[in-house]
Amino acid sequence: MKKNVLQQARAAYLPKLPKSLQGTVKVKEGKPTQSVDNQEEIKELFPNTYGMPLIEFESSKPSKMAKMNVGVILSGGQAPGGHNVITGLFDTIKRLNPENRLFGFILGPSGFVDHDYIEITEELVEDYRNTGGFDMIGSGRTKLDKEEQFEKGYEIVRELDIKAIVIIGGDDSNTNACILAEYYAAKNYGVQVIGCPKTIDGDLKNDQIETSFGFDTACKTYSELIGNIERDCNSARKYWHFIKVMGRSASHIALECALQTQPNICLISEEVEAQDLTLDDVVTYIANSVARRAEKGENFGTVIIPEGLIEFIPAIKNLISELNDVLAMPGAHLISRIEQIDFVKQQISDENLAVFNSLPTSVAHQLALDRDPHGNVQVSLIETEKLLSSMVATKLERWRKTGMFNGQFATQHHFFGYEGRCAAPSNFDADYCYALGTSAAQLIANGKTGYMAIVKNTTAPAEEWIAGGVPITMMMNMERRNGKRKPVIRKALVDLEGVPFKTFAEQRGEWSKNTCFIYPGPIQYWGPTEVCDQPTMTLALEQGKL
Amino acid sequence: MKKNVLQQARAAYLPKLPKSLQGTVKVKEGKPTQSVDNQEEIKELFPNTYGMPLIEFESSKPSKMAKMNVGVILSGGQAPGGHNVITGLFDTIKRLNPENRLFGFILGPSGFVDHDYIEITEELVEDYRNTGGFDMIGSGRTKLDKEEQFEKGYEIVRELDIKAIVIIGGDDSNTNACILAEYYAAKNYGVQVIGCPKTIDGDLKNDQIETSFGFDTACKTYSELIGNIERDCNSARKYWHFIKVMGRSASHIALECALQTQPNICLISEEVEAQDLTLDDVVTYIANSVARRAEKGENFGTVIIPEGLIEFIPAIKNLISELNDVLAMPGAHLISRIEQIDFVKQQISDENLAVFNSLPTSVAHQLALDRDPHGNVQVSLIETEKLLSSMVATKLERWRKTGMFNGQFATQHHFFGYEGRCAAPSNFDADYCYALGTSAAQLIANGKTGYMAIVKNTTAPAEEWIAGGVPITMMMNMERRNGKRKPVIRKALVDLEGVPFKTFAEQRGEWSKNTCFIYPGPIQYWGPTEVCDQPTMTLALEQGKL
Repeated sequence: MKKNVLQQARAAYLPKLPKSLQGTVKVKEGKPTQSVDNQEEIKELFPNTYGMPLIEFESSKPSKMAKMNVGVILSGGQAPGGHNVITGLFDTIKRLNPENRLFGFILGPSGFVDHDYIEITEELVEDYRNTGGFDMIGSGRTKLDKEEQFEKGYEIVRELDIKAIVIIGGDDSNTNACILAEYYAAKNYGVQVIGCPKTIDGDLKNDQIETSFGFDTACKTYSELIGNIERDCNSARKYWHFIKVMGRSASHIALECALQTQPNICLISEEVEAQDLTLDDVVTYIANSVARRAEKGENFGTVIIPEGLIEFIPAIKNLISELNDVLAMPGAHLISRIEQIDFVKQQISDENLAVFNSLPTSVAHQLALDRDPHGNVQVSLIETEKLLSSMVATKLERWRKTGMFNGQFATQHHFFGYEGRCAAPSNFDADYCYALGTSAAQLIANGKTGYMAIVKNTTAPAEEWIAGGVPITMMMNMERRNGKRKPVIRKALVDLEGVPFKTFAEQRGEWSKNTCFIYPGPIQYWGPTEVCDQPTMTLALEQGKL
Repeated sequence: MKKNVLQQARAAYLPKLPKSLQGTVKVKEGKPTQSVDNQEEIKELFPNTYGMPLIEFESSKPSKMAKMNVGVILSGGQAPGGHNVITGLFDTIKRLNPENRLFGFILGPSGFVDHDYIEITEELVEDYRNTGGFDMIGSGRTKLDKEEQFEKGYEIVRELDIKAIVIIGGDDSNTNACILAEYYAAKNYGVQVIGCPKTIDGDLKNDQIETSFGFDTACKTYSELIGNIERDCNSARKYWHFIKVMGRSASHIALECALQTQPNICLISEEVEAQDLTLDDVVTYIANSVARRAEKGENFGTVIIPEGLIEFIPAIKNLISELNDVLAMPGAHLISRIEQIDFVKQQISDENLAVFNSLPTSVAHQLALDRDPHGNVQVSLIETEKLLSSMVATKLERWRKTGMFNGQFATQHHFFGYEGRCAAPSNFDADYCYALGTSAAQLIANGKTGYMAIVKNTTAPAEEWIAGGVPITMMMNMERRNGKRKPVIRKALVDLEGVPFKTFAEQRGEWSKNTCFIYPGPIQYWGPTEVCDQPTMTLALEQGKL
């Protein structure tokens, strides 16, 4: 691999570790735990992994550990820092016993099931220290939730003499890690399973998990770009920039970027749903800011839109739901594309028809015509940023006729996702991930299964971080998925009562009228610690540090 | 202005200055100069500013200068470092005589003509040191090329007792700076005019100007993003990313980003034109790489596309030219949109009809229907990245039927422009711009007009840079513009015989087959000098430093 100078210099970065993880480690166990809800059901489903205590690591005297081999799996979308979890895991198991070996399963859970793996060696690790991406072993979206997969995996576990599997993934992958742990425990296979909290979306967090890794770097990268656009916007003074950011259902990324860059508008899907807003409400909200700024001659601005917005608008949600039913009617796929629009219009309810007719033609056609392989409307393909700007433009033209708007409204559109998922990790994510990998190794060495590696107190200097493990069942409740009740880790959406949202809500009125942009600039690895080692504003606000 | 911690720390950065500019300065004059072509014509058009010598600054003993006020104008698109040109100018004229004053004209040349200005004070300058954007005084695209504008400007020059105007702009703005210098000289107004070479596009360079400011930072910012996408691409292994980058007609940005990131494909408009390639040739070239990589199971890759590509394909250029004529026919605008497609098809030549019919419907409709206020086809609106990927997909499906392609081809699209034009300047641009501003001040102090400030030897450490001035007429030739012969600075397109292109051309065969991605990461301001203080690869290759 040819590396540029930054990569070469950055490879030498030594992640900062919590004091308790720097040497030999012993386990301090807390009281038995309960799941966050549906305790009886979860307990019955996970008889072997339910109720285990919280774990905290403490420094201890050295003692040579028995030999243990470990397997690691990257599951789902990329997040900055994944390689450092593997690096921390590798360094720690080698430190515990140099004969220990680490195996990486290729392209995610399917590598585990299909026995596609490589041994992770010192030489390989050196190429990936403090780097972004998951390309060391690749990732994949295969769901690991069937007994035959567990049994196929067990074959390779025995073949490689693996003591434990580490699954690095989001909420669903960690739920499945726990199901796998329970299965192996029930079968007495003697194989441990440990999870690690990964996702740029920031929706895997709770009382035990302060933040998922990758959120910090991804948000800082998007904020760099949003800040650059804001500065352009404020220099050229002629465009409204509509910027969509990744984050799936949750608006954590949009909110964090807004706190960092202070755009004129940032929409929060969770609030749109809670207030039962219509698409027209959202459009009016934006148009109002445009009109008020135009009165001051400021015909420019920035709008941040969370990826999942469209599904949170109750009226659109209902429309999509009915469209899915209508398009699934027998014979519907035989109708020609041209006739399909009329067909859809005849079939749907009056209420949904009104919503359908209010949409720009291109979006309405997309909803009525384009479907995924399961026959569903492809919500993710809808360019919400263009949908909103086009509807705002229409509204402003109407206002112009009545004198309510008398400015210019020219637009530019952006969507940031792939630009940040594989960025090289910030110091925070580099340190946090290395500590998570080290914690995972120590959970394994201490015989634990069904745990997720955790690191707390993350707004303090890394030395003071507290490392340990949390039983995955503790974070579970029962939810309906595909018509069945399933045990799942509760997803964390933006808390409208939380400090980050409230801080944003207090200031956004000012931001929408005036130009309060902040330009964060690129992530810095060297330099003053207040520049290089800060957590996200979300985290700092949640922990009362701002 | 609320600043984040990086902005605060970065404000304290002291740009590195060439030794010759650090103290008092004297002028070393070279021999009389000639324009690059059409010497007699240019000489006749610029009797007062033609043939002046090249200037180089040398250290000298201090001597207090007479009082002089200066006006500064930002012209055209934003480029990182503009604020540092102003800062360097400000610091130097204040050092020459603390009573000197600097005035900034608001929103570009129109501020000069309309007498809209502010005084640039120490307090204002402190807020903008080492920052991106042009928001300190704003920029604009008003052309400054009419006598009545020059006379209006002269009114405010007299009112504010201004000795010299500094125009920070691209090739056209600097051409106009020279026309203004000539006009004031001919009229004996005693007002000097000095230019500064600005543009992220990199097309303002020649024997005297090594690089235009902003190119370095913009390319590094785009390369950061392209590298992040490449890493995602190489981790998820399921998408071909088509990435368009700004740069107007020239492909310098695309080429520099390719040298930094080693994508599978990078198109160079100048080469497409030189080889008289058809759109189908370009599509086949990309499809070949996709098919060959698919044979190895690598159904992913990255393609960099220069913004101006579409206009460089001779067949498309001819089609657009004929469409412009057809759409300008009397009565053409009265035809309904639906009939217009047929109308266009009937009117154009068979050759252009074949090209028209080969385009995806949406692009063909856009060409036939959407026009700018002058009635011309809006080439800049064409989403070349989507046009190419859709045509590649069509070709691959045809190949699939004959067994020539047997893989997957899923795509993502990106366009990077506004993300980098206002980034905070790299150390290179921060230093280079501050030196340019300092040079401009010294040219003024030494009574020069019709000069552009220059800094040479820019791949050496900043201390060893050579600062001076070049007569703008020296870079001129005569070209047809809007049907008339005009004196203009010759635009620098990518030189197909130059080292940067040849270096790229030698390696691209390997890149197209294999995965040779490089991930440059974000611009660093602190850290090892080989990370923080490097020029672009284009510049290093041109100067034999790589």
